[in-house]
Amino acid sequence: MVNTTSVNTLMAALTDTGRDSRRGGYSRPVYSAAELELREWFAAEAARRGLAVETDRNGILWAWWDLPGSGTGTGPSAPERRGALVTGSHLDSVPGGGAFDGPLGVASALAAVDILQARENDGTLLRNRALAVAVFPEEEGSRFGVACLGSRLLAGAIDPRKALSLRDADGNTFADVSRANGLDPDLMGRDDAALGLIGDFVELHVEQGRGLNTEEFTDSAGRGPAVAVGGSVLGHGRWRFTISGQGNHAGTTLMADRSDPMVAAAQLIVAVRQTAAAQAGARATVGRLEPVPGGTNVIASRVDLWLDVRHPDDAVTAALVEKIHGQAQKIAAFEGCSVQLTEESLSGTVHFDPALQRSLEQSATRTVPDAPVLATGAGHDAGVLAARVPTGMLFVRNPSGISHSPEEYVEDWDADTGVLALADVLQDLL
Amino acid sequence: MVNTTSVNTLMAALTDTGRDSRRGGYSRPVYSAAELELREWFAAEAARRGLAVETDRNGILWAWWDLPGSGTGTGPSAPERRGALVTGSHLDSVPGGGAFDGPLGVASALAAVDILQARENDGTLLRNRALAVAVFPEEEGSRFGVACLGSRLLAGAIDPRKALSLRDADGNTFADVSRANGLDPDLMGRDDAALGLIGDFVELHVEQGRGLNTEEFTDSAGRGPAVAVGGSVLGHGRWRFTISGQGNHAGTTLMADRSDPMVAAAQLIVAVRQTAAAQAGARATVGRLEPVPGGTNVIASRVDLWLDVRHPDDAVTAALVEKIHGQAQKIAAFEGCSVQLTEESLSGTVHFDPALQRSLEQSATRTVPDAPVLATGAGHDAGVLAARVPTGMLFVRNPSGISHSPEEYVEDWDADTGVLALADVLQDLL
Repeated sequence: MVNTTSVNTLMAALTDTGRDSRRGGYSRPVYSAAELELREWFAAEAARRGLAVETDRNGILWAWWDLPGSGTGTGPSAPERRGALVTGSHLDSVPGGGAFDGPLGVASALAAVDILQARENDGTLLRNRALAVAVFPEEEGSRFGVACLGSRLLAGAIDPRKALSLRDADGNTFADVSRANGLDPDLMGRDDAALGLIGDFVELHVEQGRGLNTEEFTDSAGRGPAVAVGGSVLGHGRWRFTISGQGNHAGTTLMADRSDPMVAAAQLIVAVRQTAAAQAGARATVGRLEPVPGGTNVIASRVDLWLDVRHPDDAVTAALVEKIHGQAQKIAAFEGCSVQLTEESLSGTVHFDPALQRSLEQSATRTVPDAPVLATGAGHDAGVLAARVPTGMLFVRNPSGISHSPEEYVEDWDADTGVLALADVLQDLL
Repeated sequence: MVNTTSVNTLMAALTDTGRDSRRGGYSRPVYSAAELELREWFAAEAARRGLAVETDRNGILWAWWDLPGSGTGTGPSAPERRGALVTGSHLDSVPGGGAFDGPLGVASALAAVDILQARENDGTLLRNRALAVAVFPEEEGSRFGVACLGSRLLAGAIDPRKALSLRDADGNTFADVSRANGLDPDLMGRDDAALGLIGDFVELHVEQGRGLNTEEFTDSAGRGPAVAVGGSVLGHGRWRFTISGQGNHAGTTLMADRSDPMVAAAQLIVAVRQTAAAQAGARATVGRLEPVPGGTNVIASRVDLWLDVRHPDDAVTAALVEKIHGQAQKIAAFEGCSVQLTEESLSGTVHFDPALQRSLEQSATRTVPDAPVLATGAGHDAGVLAARVPTGMLFVRNPSGISHSPEEYVEDWDADTGVLALADVLQDLL
């Protein structure tokens, strides 16, 4: 007899971890006290299900449900684990994020394991391979500025020297923080042994747009299907603009004498909006801006701002950034400022493995007959891993489409349906 | 025999305190480790000169050079101190500020005391009243948002309940921080006994514009006079705009679906520049802006930005802020956002005491024959105290006019000349 736990019960245990009283919602940056608490919660829940929890050299957590009667081998070198089926997501959040982005995929994986273990006990599941639940660090890039940092390191999609030299807002390097969390920076980077363990990777995630709740899919009550199968991940990237001017006193410096990088930054943000709005399918956002020194009675000497751009066509993304860079140079020169552009990350549009996608569609539609295939504008570890192993995704309905916000929301019924679909998907692949 | 110390030697001792490696220059917010270290330095230097150092109930430091043969009474109730001559300035800085804004006035006061004590020893100075050097806390308002907070409390220019409820960026109230620094919040606020001690207040300060280095005053080598006498302080105020929109995911939210407060804030900053540039004599600055939550891949849900406005005519300042508020409302509505305006501080234009100003002109021109009278666009404790006691100011030349910046600069020769002028000014008033 195996007890199955509702994903909503699992999620309820996380309600108090990493709440952000200033921003609202949750702030759970990687390796913060809050994220570490979530990792401990995961390790305990996995152990309760008899899973073997291990941390690999890139800080990715793996919880292994090995095949019955398999040897005692553990870690990436265990031959019985090669080509396993892996599911999971991440536990870190953006600053002031919602409860579901990340943890829903991890909790749903645990709940799906409950169902599969019950079926194995009943004799209705015969496995041909091991299953693992993986938790990837720094998916949001909220602390070190590069999204999907854990999966990028694993897949060799980022130079480990570049990754290790990234700094958080307090000036700590990713190398130092990794070391403080028990990792050896010299061993971090592409891990072919670990990649060899992944036969297929399936990530369940809350939808981050209104894709499942558009008129195309909703019923007469305005309710869309609970689950979609992922088709592709829009290409996207992050660029940092550093605009440098002349710091000065706000009261004594005549308006005509100013080289104020805040004014140039403001003009650039307006240009970004106009440029993106004029390009069909494009999304461009400035959500982070830091004036230096940042005093009320001080003309800033420098403003750093971060640009997020996404478009299905990678060439359009590149052209948009080039156009915005040109605008920034003109704007800065007019204000007597200079501008420097740094590409912090860039990922092309990713199409998930077609065979795995068809399998997910067949399995998921047993539970959710009208589950559509959706592209997503959000980046995911599954998108990074797709370059190296077959990956697929399931999205759970987000009624308002709001995400990266305290108002992000998933209905209990949809979350439960997502787990049932995930369990069927995994069973058919095991 | 009394040793006199050059102000440049005194300033050199402060070189390492509160350096800001990220912003450059110095960050010495009130009651930070750096500012407390400067207070200790001041107390030690004052004690070395035989001055009696006391902290009043608002956290203002007083170093008393009592009259020879005066009684042992100390504190605000000592009758021998009533109507004393007071000089001084502040030790706190803006974030990433320069070395001179504040400390130059304090160090110059100590160096002037050296000269005056030497003259008293020589019999060339006969005093009629006590002299005190005062150090005012939170002049910049960098930590709690209200400039000249110490002098405002002393003068009754701010409701102490409002002052005590101010919070720093970490959420600490001014009441808590004051208590942690040995003050009793219940006793803070207007202090008539302490005000009664001040017969005249003279503050020396680095000039924060190019006033002394404009063509009107410079010689053939482009060098202006070392010292100016203060005429007035431009009225100024600080206002916080809170623009609220809809936080959301940067990748999944279509441009047309957005209510992005960062875009509205950017348009407002551009409007502020245009509005101020069109009004002769006006200065308006946005130097601080905080998006919430502030993630790269997140459309902000809220942006707080701070507006600093100054103009010689208080009615014009009020009209400018009203105009900018109207622009903010239109801009926010167009973006589907709302805007809230909070006045954080407001000071009218202050004209220094005419008789004291004439005395300063007569004394200062003995050392600097061409010392002009200048208005200042920067706020000062002397401007706040002017409402209650006769106050005057001396400004020391700032070759570039740059202030509130690591590049703020004073030449040694000018600093020494400033001390000589201050000593003469004080001697004539003693």
